Amino acid sequence: MPMPSNIRLGIGTLSINGSFSVELEGYREPRIDRAIQRFLHDLSHDTGIPMRNQITDPANATLVVRAEHANKPIQDVNEDEGYTLDVSASGAKLTAPNPLGVMHGLQTFLQLVEVTPGGFVASAVHIEDSPRFPWRGLTIDVSRHFISVDTLKRNIDGMSAVKMNVLHLHLSDDQGFRIASRQFPKLVEMGSDGQYYTKAEVRDLIGYASDRGVRVVPEFDMPGHSTSWFVGYPELASAPGPYQIERRWGIFDPAMDPSREQTYEFLDKFIGEMADLFPDHYFHIGGDEVNGKQWDANPKIREFMRVHSLKNNQELQQYFTLRVQKIVSKHQKLMVGWDEILGPGMPKDKVVIQSWRGQDSLAAAAKQGYSGILSSGYYLDAMAPAKKYYSVDPMSNADATLNLDQQKRILGGEACMWAEFITDDNIDSRIWPRAAAISERLWSAPQVQDVHSMYIRLSAMSQYLEQLGLRHRSSSEMMLSRMSGADNIAALLTLADVAEPASLQIREEEAQKAGGIQTSDTPLNRMVDAVLPESEVARRFSQMVNQFVGSNFQDTKAKSDIRSLLLAWRDNDNELRPLLQNSYLLKELSPVSQTLSSLGGVGLQALDDIDKGERGSDSWHKEQIAIFQEAEKPAADLFLAVAPAVQKLVEASTRSEK
Amino acid sequence: MPMPSNIRLGIGTLSINGSFSVELEGYREPRIDRAIQRFLHDLSHDTGIPMRNQITDPANATLVVRAEHANKPIQDVNEDEGYTLDVSASGAKLTAPNPLGVMHGLQTFLQLVEVTPGGFVASAVHIEDSPRFPWRGLTIDVSRHFISVDTLKRNIDGMSAVKMNVLHLHLSDDQGFRIASRQFPKLVEMGSDGQYYTKAEVRDLIGYASDRGVRVVPEFDMPGHSTSWFVGYPELASAPGPYQIERRWGIFDPAMDPSREQTYEFLDKFIGEMADLFPDHYFHIGGDEVNGKQWDANPKIREFMRVHSLKNNQELQQYFTLRVQKIVSKHQKLMVGWDEILGPGMPKDKVVIQSWRGQDSLAAAAKQGYSGILSSGYYLDAMAPAKKYYSVDPMSNADATLNLDQQKRILGGEACMWAEFITDDNIDSRIWPRAAAISERLWSAPQVQDVHSMYIRLSAMSQYLEQLGLRHRSSSEMMLSRMSGADNIAALLTLADVAEPASLQIREEEAQKAGGIQTSDTPLNRMVDAVLPESEVARRFSQMVNQFVGSNFQDTKAKSDIRSLLLAWRDNDNELRPLLQNSYLLKELSPVSQTLSSLGGVGLQALDDIDKGERGSDSWHKEQIAIFQEAEKPAADLFLAVAPAVQKLVEASTRSEK
Repeated sequence: MPMPSNIRLGIGTLSINGSFSVELEGYREPRIDRAIQRFLHDLSHDTGIPMRNQITDPANATLVVRAEHANKPIQDVNEDEGYTLDVSASGAKLTAPNPLGVMHGLQTFLQLVEVTPGGFVASAVHIEDSPRFPWRGLTIDVSRHFISVDTLKRNIDGMSAVKMNVLHLHLSDDQGFRIASRQFPKLVEMGSDGQYYTKAEVRDLIGYASDRGVRVVPEFDMPGHSTSWFVGYPELASAPGPYQIERRWGIFDPAMDPSREQTYEFLDKFIGEMADLFPDHYFHIGGDEVNGKQWDANPKIREFMRVHSLKNNQELQQYFTLRVQKIVSKHQKLMVGWDEILGPGMPKDKVVIQSWRGQDSLAAAAKQGYSGILSSGYYLDAMAPAKKYYSVDPMSNADATLNLDQQKRILGGEACMWAEFITDDNIDSRIWPRAAAISERLWSAPQVQDVHSMYIRLSAMSQYLEQLGLRHRSSSEMMLSRMSGADNIAALLTLADVAEPASLQIREEEAQKAGGIQTSDTPLNRMVDAVLPESEVARRFSQMVNQFVGSNFQDTKAKSDIRSLLLAWRDNDNELRPLLQNSYLLKELSPVSQTLSSLGGVGLQALDDIDKGERGSDSWHKEQIAIFQEAEKPAADLFLAVAPAVQKLVEASTRSEK
Repeated sequence: MPMPSNIRLGIGTLSINGSFSVELEGYREPRIDRAIQRFLHDLSHDTGIPMRNQITDPANATLVVRAEHANKPIQDVNEDEGYTLDVSASGAKLTAPNPLGVMHGLQTFLQLVEVTPGGFVASAVHIEDSPRFPWRGLTIDVSRHFISVDTLKRNIDGMSAVKMNVLHLHLSDDQGFRIASRQFPKLVEMGSDGQYYTKAEVRDLIGYASDRGVRVVPEFDMPGHSTSWFVGYPELASAPGPYQIERRWGIFDPAMDPSREQTYEFLDKFIGEMADLFPDHYFHIGGDEVNGKQWDANPKIREFMRVHSLKNNQELQQYFTLRVQKIVSKHQKLMVGWDEILGPGMPKDKVVIQSWRGQDSLAAAAKQGYSGILSSGYYLDAMAPAKKYYSVDPMSNADATLNLDQQKRILGGEACMWAEFITDDNIDSRIWPRAAAISERLWSAPQVQDVHSMYIRLSAMSQYLEQLGLRHRSSSEMMLSRMSGADNIAALLTLADVAEPASLQIREEEAQKAGGIQTSDTPLNRMVDAVLPESEVARRFSQMVNQFVGSNFQDTKAKSDIRSLLLAWRDNDNELRPLLQNSYLLKELSPVSQTLSSLGGVGLQALDDIDKGERGSDSWHKEQIAIFQEAEKPAADLFLAVAPAVQKLVEASTRSEK
């Protein structure tokens, strides 16, 4: 995963053992050597087989690796990332035009390795592979919650394993400014709560990413989403200060003052400094969600608009964005921004749109001559299942209406990890493994659509990523154990395994309904913060129910599996109750646990009816519908992901009269 | 854990929430500031409550921290590590003479924090605490298998949490030389397989340890256990080369040549270089297990012995050790060595003995005037249960025969993690949580002996350590999933949860019996490498059986818990079989799994007999004894830790006639 563009299975398997060795041919550079060392380390770690000095001469090599030439000095969006990998029973050969292809091919090789009754092997195969889209990214918001460098590195490891190639860091927002500037020290001194990256850390991170074929694109959101800048530099804002770091989530009034020349002088210096730090050709200036209230309220800005014939705030923002674009361009960077940055006069060849609005917006931009990447539909904080992200294609509907040149302007997409409810503890589980499904969408051919196959491979990938050091599974368990303060959390895990977290939007709505408010001071230590976004148990249970119902209730294996799960759920509330009473963090789960218990009971009743060939009474069914309606609502910001399949079982039981 | 020397419970609890704050009084230094930052980070992580700017003025502080003065510039063995911690419902105060005490007190505070129905709290308490022994160490062998810097740091975190204060790195042995020397580059170029620490890494590691109150003592084993030196520098050896890195485990012939002046010139330069790198006052030269064969075979050495009136190899080694001691002393270090280094002429005030021989050897040395630390009984690779290590006291029997001065020479002890069967993947589980029991033995009063209480606290500690980042639990599961290649490993976990790994010694014996040999090339990817050294399930099952039998079979809760475990074990082999057939690494588990199944069946039969008030026939009992005898032998280098308790149940059932 992602599925290669061309794959032809061969005969036999290549044995992977302690004598595995690699030989390097063709173009050499230190980055390739390090990639090979990492590959051997990973291979050794995947198998538990020690591998120390495995670089050898061609006659003995298990794997021959050949690159033709270097990549561009700074990894570009139009690099050739293809490779060819040949595995036979006698050996393997990986050839690629450049180091990027070598890295991708090595990752593919690692994914071929499996344990068998005869030992570790890689199946014989001929693979010719290259990506469909050149821009396959992940946005991580490090402003709303600060994310440590170690966590970012771990996630770069994951990106590299699934062949993603852009890490986009959302480095500033109302809630925090996350990178130290030499010229403007107050940005972090006053705008970060002490939580920021030093330049040395950023350089180290960029090097780490570059070694794994991942570009790092910085984003500094402007003119809105910028409160944290103004805490140290209120003169940048469109209303007088003082400003505080924003603790709430949402869209706020503060915006940069587009009417003052000093704003552009500041940005010129700042962007120049950051353009030096980030080698990538692209520089993201955000540009989204300006509500314009500060502009409306400032007479000088209104006067400025009159003088410059700017009819409304949208035109004012366009004026600002054009000025910023010139600054970005002056510092030899191409500008990236959200949909809002488009407008008259924006140079076509120097701007890339990241679309949160959708494929139509992207296609429209492509028709105007702008390149773009899709993020709409790829928001990981929506907590959607992998199959939903998987179904989102950057070119959807676009192929028909765009010509080839226009199609080429659709560069790819970026998964987005917005961080309102994200910390170092749960970020891995919010990104992985679901981002791997997005990566497959962006790398593989559009015809690769088999959701069942995707889930089988995603499940293997999830396990592999945990082995690589990602903590999406282990950290979830750690959080559950932490919030219970208990030793034996089996009953809590049973509940957690079938619960899915509400999306960012629903959490905020629920908080409002409860008259509360979520802020960056709100502890993220509830079950909703710990459970995995997509319940594996629920997915499998749903398959079982489909199987059982589809077999006209004849599949006894499915029936017995269903029954034992339902029993466990029905009885779980009893087991769980003492834990819930013991911790203030678990109290809120009581209704959820009771609903799960009811679902188990209802499901068992339906099974019994099916067994007896009886149909439950209408009044009984009406009662049950009430339970399912209850289960559809979020409780403690959780959804019981098994409810729909239990409902299906109950509905099926109504036609069970023999 | 470790239990403080004085603890008095108070009334009420201190609430831990987002407004928690700290105020620093008295002596300040950057190390204290960093300790406070780490403390706040850990407290935030333990609770999931964000804590950012929590340093405040005294009037508002939840916790006031006061140190009186600095520690010695280089942490010494006789530092005052005590502290006083007062927690009341209204606030807490930590006072200590110096930063070391502050660090220990902060760790104690973290351990007081627990989740309750009302929120996170620390119980009111007055603690006056100081360690019984000043040297509480952990030896990690990084030579036999290389251990990464990240792993060492993780383990330093663990040490600091349980108040251990010496990390002793066994940096060279026959199987590898692990640190780069500027003057003798071939030591790692030829003797390390490329697996070594740079000096910059070591400096970073020492700084990391020092920040956590942990001294780093380097060991370079000489004159034996030194093959890896000779690969690059054969002239140091007592027989002509060339030499290869040793791949086997054991005691080997190569030894340094004590008769050549050049040996001491080399060591003078080398020790000088390393003495500069490691600030600690102590320098470990090993000195153990020289078999003398190379000395016997070398006529020049025999002639040298004659000229110097050295009657045997022991005296020759004493000559060597005295020469090395002078070199170590010249470089302003105190020498540490294993028991063998003692001999006539060794200066009493400049040498510390680390005893692998035992308390008597240590006491004898103390009587002669030598200081010492105990490691006998603390070998973690023996895979003994925590209670066994816990029962080993460095002063055992010594109090009676030693006077006070002599007693003071017993400085403490070191847990030892020898690395024949250790990798980065399983080292955490071999050290933790068992080392915490050793730490308590070394820190707490000798009367703290309640094994039951120890296990309750150890279990909480184990969970806490995993939360801190140690991977003793999660990595075990990762290894099991890796070796199965399967998605659902529930049945494998059921087996793994009741299996304990054989000790280093038994593994080597078993390998010899099988005509094989374990080397550093042997993959450590079997179940024996993954399962935890001490089965929690087995310990609990044993408690249940004791409870049940002790209640004269009346405890129905215990009976039902016992029955459900026995049922799961009996039926597990069926579930597990498909997994075992799927992976060459699991095949060997087939007999173990069958034995577990038999144990389950036998136990259920015994329960039934008890229920019926019947006694199984003698012949039945004889059969069962055969099963238990089988279960006592290692299979696949594993022991089924539940066998003794099942046996107890069966034996009890023989007296169940009503």
